[in-house]
Amino acid sequence: MEKDHILSLARARRSVRRYSGEPVDLEDILYALEAASQAPSGSNRQPWRFMIVTDPEVKSRIREASESGEREFYARVSGEWGRWLAGKGLSWRKPFLEEAPVLVLVFSEMGAPYHRESVWLATGYVLLALQELGLESLTYTPSDTKRVAESVGASDGFSLEAVLPIGFSLDGGKKETRRKVGEMTFHNRWGECIGVEISTGP
Amino acid sequence: MEKDHILSLARARRSVRRYSGEPVDLEDILYALEAASQAPSGSNRQPWRFMIVTDPEVKSRIREASESGEREFYARVSGEWGRWLAGKGLSWRKPFLEEAPVLVLVFSEMGAPYHRESVWLATGYVLLALQELGLESLTYTPSDTKRVAESVGASDGFSLEAVLPIGFSLDGGKKETRRKVGEMTFHNRWGECIGVEISTGP
Repeated sequence: MEKDHILSLARARRSVRRYSGEPVDLEDILYALEAASQAPSGSNRQPWRFMIVTDPEVKSRIREASESGEREFYARVSGEWGRWLAGKGLSWRKPFLEEAPVLVLVFSEMGAPYHRESVWLATGYVLLALQELGLESLTYTPSDTKRVAESVGASDGFSLEAVLPIGFSLDGGKKETRRKVGEMTFHNRWGECIGVEISTGP
Repeated sequence: MEKDHILSLARARRSVRRYSGEPVDLEDILYALEAASQAPSGSNRQPWRFMIVTDPEVKSRIREASESGEREFYARVSGEWGRWLAGKGLSWRKPFLEEAPVLVLVFSEMGAPYHRESVWLATGYVLLALQELGLESLTYTPSDTKRVAESVGASDGFSLEAVLPIGFSLDGGKKETRRKVGEMTFHNRWGECIGVEISTGP
């Protein structure tokens, strides 16, 4: 087993917002969710629930509920966040919610300790597992998660954390750049950056 | 590249609370944090900060701050959570905070959108990368994260999300069992479990 598989996957993965219609094998989705279900969680409550959506009618409802929340959000967002969104050409329109062959809705059980933390940790597993299978994805959190959860009839007590469109990229877009890990990492003292370059691979 | 590496790692990983004194290569820790720093985040703000702690004096301060918060928490916890903790023999004592050769403190920048979600997703990357290198770990969130953050002089504006002791297990403990992914996964309709067994690997 290679020893730098995770880092290669992490580096290769990027957020994708345009999907081709090419279908995805449901077994692959289940592989990624199976990995997620092995993650640790508060009191081992496994507070995640996943909804795989392939039905166009359901996707369309999810898109409608998402976009109505986004229209309100984009009308009020400002500051650094607003500038970032505008700079990326992002808007309230979320066509990927219908274009991607599969959506995975990720929910957390609100009564479980550290439910949100646990579910997002498990979502990290999902992203790497999808990347391993050559599938592209996005972690999209609707501005109005409640409205979207209602649109699919989610039970009370479960909070929608993310919608993951999954499929194959239509564009040849590039990954956003990342800061060097040495700039984000301190050693023994806050503010004292470790500041190293790490070499990986041969 | 094998196609079921992520699932194998996810299955093999378990939470470890007893560590041997065997030292850990700092390069390995940086490898895992480098993977994390490639994760997606809200507006690509990369809101994570990591503090690698190897200094025994700093570990001891972290343990003290953690345990004083835990004593208060354990005095008041009850219900299902309390029973789970008691059943696992867990208490306010956190010796792993001194026993593990390395601690990684994971912080999130509170001003960044979806900072908590982003940092926990990245923590999922960390756990898999550590597992790949044969390192064991725990995601421990102190009951009083503020006190622990203060004990290491973290800046205002950063929230302590988790302390990860990292090293080699002393015990031959077993992983907590997990529910089948088919029980946690719906298809197109809430409540309609996909209920499959997935086969992976030969």
